[in-house]
Amino acid sequence: MDLKSKSPSESDVEATHIVQPPDTNVHSTAFGGRITQWMDIAAGVAANRHCRRPCVTVAIDQLHFAKPIQLGDIVIIKARVNNTGRTSMEVGVKVCKEDPTTGIREHCLTGYFTFVAIHSMTRKPMEVPAINPVTEEDKRRFEEAKQRRAVRLANK
Amino acid sequence: MDLKSKSPSESDVEATHIVQPPDTNVHSTAFGGRITQWMDIAAGVAANRHCRRPCVTVAIDQLHFAKPIQLGDIVIIKARVNNTGRTSMEVGVKVCKEDPTTGIREHCLTGYFTFVAIHSMTRKPMEVPAINPVTEEDKRRFEEAKQRRAVRLANK
Amino acid sequence: MDLKSKSPSESDVEATHIVQPPDTNVHSTAFGGRITQWMDIAAGVAANRHCRRPCVTVAIDQLHFAKPIQLGDIVIIKARVNNTGRTSMEVGVKVCKEDPTTGIREHCLTGYFTFVAIHSMTRKPMEVPAINPVTEEDKRRFEEAKQRRAVRLANK
Amino acid sequence: MDLKSKSPSESDVEATHIVQPPDTNVHSTAFGGRITQWMDIAAGVAANRHCRRPCVTVAIDQLHFAKPIQLGDIVIIKARVNNTGRTSMEVGVKVCKEDPTTGIREHCLTGYFTFVAIHSMTRKPMEVPAINPVTEEDKRRFEEAKQRRAVRLANK
Amino acid sequence: MDLKSKSPSESDVEATHIVQPPDTNVHSTAFGGRITQWMDIAAGVAANRHCRRPCVTVAIDQLHFAKPIQLGDIVIIKARVNNTGRTSMEVGVKVCKEDPTTGIREHCLTGYFTFVAIHSMTRKPMEVPAINPVTEEDKRRFEEAKQRRAVRLANK
Amino acid sequence: MDLKSKSPSESDVEATHIVQPPDTNVHSTAFGGRITQWMDIAAGVAANRHCRRPCVTVAIDQLHFAKPIQLGDIVIIKARVNNTGRTSMEVGVKVCKEDPTTGIREHCLTGYFTFVAIHSMTRKPMEVPAINPVTEEDKRRFEEAKQRRAVRLANK
Repeated sequence: MDLKSKSPSESDVEATHIVQPPDTNVHSTAFGGRITQWMDIAAGVAANRHCRRPCVTVAIDQLHFAKPIQLGDIVIIKARVNNTGRTSMEVGVKVCKEDPTTGIREHCLTGYFTFVAIHSMTRKPMEVPAINPVTEEDKRRFEEAKQRRAVRLANK
Repeated sequence: MDLKSKSPSESDVEATHIVQPPDTNVHSTAFGGRITQWMDIAAGVAANRHCRRPCVTVAIDQLHFAKPIQLGDIVIIKARVNNTGRTSMEVGVKVCKEDPTTGIREHCLTGYFTFVAIHSMTRKPMEVPAINPVTEEDKRRFEEAKQRRAVRLANK
Repeated sequence: MDLKSKSPSESDVEATHIVQPPDTNVHSTAFGGRITQWMDIAAGVAANRHCRRPCVTVAIDQLHFAKPIQLGDIVIIKARVNNTGRTSMEVGVKVCKEDPTTGIREHCLTGYFTFVAIHSMTRKPMEVPAINPVTEEDKRRFEEAKQRRAVRLANK
Repeated sequence: MDLKSKSPSESDVEATHIVQPPDTNVHSTAFGGRITQWMDIAAGVAANRHCRRPCVTVAIDQLHFAKPIQLGDIVIIKARVNNTGRTSMEVGVKVCKEDPTTGIREHCLTGYFTFVAIHSMTRKPMEVPAINPVTEEDKRRFEEAKQRRAVRLANK
Repeated sequence: MDLKSKSPSESDVEATHIVQPPDTNVHSTAFGGRITQWMDIAAGVAANRHCRRPCVTVAIDQLHFAKPIQLGDIVIIKARVNNTGRTSMEVGVKVCKEDPTTGIREHCLTGYFTFVAIHSMTRKPMEVPAINPVTEEDKRRFEEAKQRRAVRLANK
Repeated sequence: MDLKSKSPSESDVEATHIVQPPDTNVHSTAFGGRITQWMDIAAGVAANRHCRRPCVTVAIDQLHFAKPIQLGDIVIIKARVNNTGRTSMEVGVKVCKEDPTTGIREHCLTGYFTFVAIHSMTRKPMEVPAINPVTEEDKRRFEEAKQRRAVRLANK
């Protein structure tokens, strides 16, 4: 396996959904669990693109649902690896809604998903490529992820 | 409503999925109906981005499943409006699979979805902005869509 | 395997559904992708009844949604093999809705699904029995399917 | 509303499914709850065809799963009204599996679903047409349903 | 495997759900098939807790839906083994709804699910521990289950 | 509405699930998004039991998936309100798996869900009853929740 470092943008994922009746709760807004499921899938693809190994979710942090997402809204999910440990990767996931009538996009929530790469047979953790932040934005995310990781380890 | 013409790229949609067990048939490949459902959603967003009105699927054409998509594959769906009628829009949808281990992408199928814009209350068809093909690629797609539309009308 | 020719009616399939909330879009009508999924399953059973082998969808053509299907409508799907190639079968699928209050049935759409029979292990295409059109209706469908197949091959 | 008596066959429903991965339990057989859901939908259509009113399930009885249904099996569900009360209808539902390779059909279970017709607004029970058993089979079912109803009322 | 007798309470299961849009029918009440699916899962856990073997549903009896369960209601399902045969177990399942605004709970239905323990490989029925009713309530349920079993066997 | 303070145990929720094929990813373990969905529903019931108002998820924090949950495992989810703000409630959710063969339970993850009570019409935040920690355990959770809240507000 190739462990050459990669830039964050090499893991970029974009996913698009429409909130349909099965995705809603009794208030006709997308329910938290479904949005999290969509985020988890996008984040899993980003982690996989970084390491090209099977990846499993080990942590979900700081999902703050800032705005409700309504039935009929278009949901755009963007995911990208922010930072890596020896076998783990933190993926930042950003969720926007797009009003289907006006096209206005609003940021609804961000969340941080941590994945570990595993061996497909033994399921033991496997080393992942280091991340190599390129842009200023990449570097800021890299630093913030480092701090979240420290908090995560302290909470264990 | 703004009926100023738009370029095809203004309707671009990208959606990303992973083929999970509920998406598979007894052969452990994604079943045709599920892939079509994902295409229909992406195409619906593209049509909506073109006209900013409620849109309903009126035709699905020429879905040729060239390669099976396996359990665990990443699926990338790209949709874009190719051409428009007075109230209808033809959306081209391209489906690729990405091998999670190698990252190799293969084109699996293309299909054409026709939508009609409707009034949210009366459900009557509504005029949509004209399409304004910009690139050579846009123009080729525009012409091909015109021919498919002629076939579609002849088949009615 | 028995490759003795079969008549179209030997592959007849009937499926009945009710459009429930999870099957609807934001307009409270059945969404295109779900109807296609139901058609794909019924068509797959018809193909299987013709050849008694695993079958995979290779093409979907000419789905024209002529009438919207509402929440609460009964949906009746009929599928039958129209024509066969060496390893492929074209299945015609007809969808009607039945108003639950009046019992009035209306034809909503027809579509053509092509399946290929495959070996359960090698997944290589396998020969299928020839079709033997019996009635006038069978023969008309047989001829039309032949023309659609020519178009399909030309489009490849 | 037309309360003219109807024959059982006027309510006949046939539904066809394939057992796919989302329908299975950890033993790779269709799980009881899913089969019951499919039976409930088919029975609901039969009840509706008898009375042409909204119908709600009020009882499910004597579902005996005689044979397991495997992943990949074709499932054929047949439903028909057996008998009626003033506002209720008993629907008999028969489930067969069809082996996709051999075409051999086996009876897997039968169950009895009782529905009540309701007013769409007030949700109050509404009278239903009487049933008029025509064939010997119809009459046998009619009598057996009468006995099950007595047991049901005694159990209340 | 340990075949020492167990008390009914050792198999107690509690499950809690909210009725969300995908669980409802066109009347905005939970549809019978979904409630039965939830009951089947809770009952399967109870049977499993009694015998610690794979268990499959073999019968569902006397589900009487006494009260409709509305969109937004909290559903509380309680399951417990009532009685056992050599390889079978009867599980009683009680369903209450809780009004989310008032907290008032109402009993909506009870049903009886029979499971058989099977060998994980051969799928042959396996002996289960005897049940040892402790409280008066346990004994009453034990006796009633015995009578239902006699009816079930007579109906076969 | 009654704003009298409540003890944490008045909001207790228990939910039980079995991991079935539709709940699994390609590794045959429960996927993170589904577990989160189950947690969100249990947490929503706990929040509702505390305030008896419609509640919406506003934050999900510190989900650490310590152990994979396998296909066939029984999943037990326990939720309880830890602390409250003026309109918000923090719910602690604990997930255990129970091995169906041995009955051994293992703690798999804990997570913290924040809900806000809203008016059913205006959707404006509404005051909730204060929490009144009773046991030592209640008080410890109350204090920890207070600290997490401070972090959450700082992260905004």
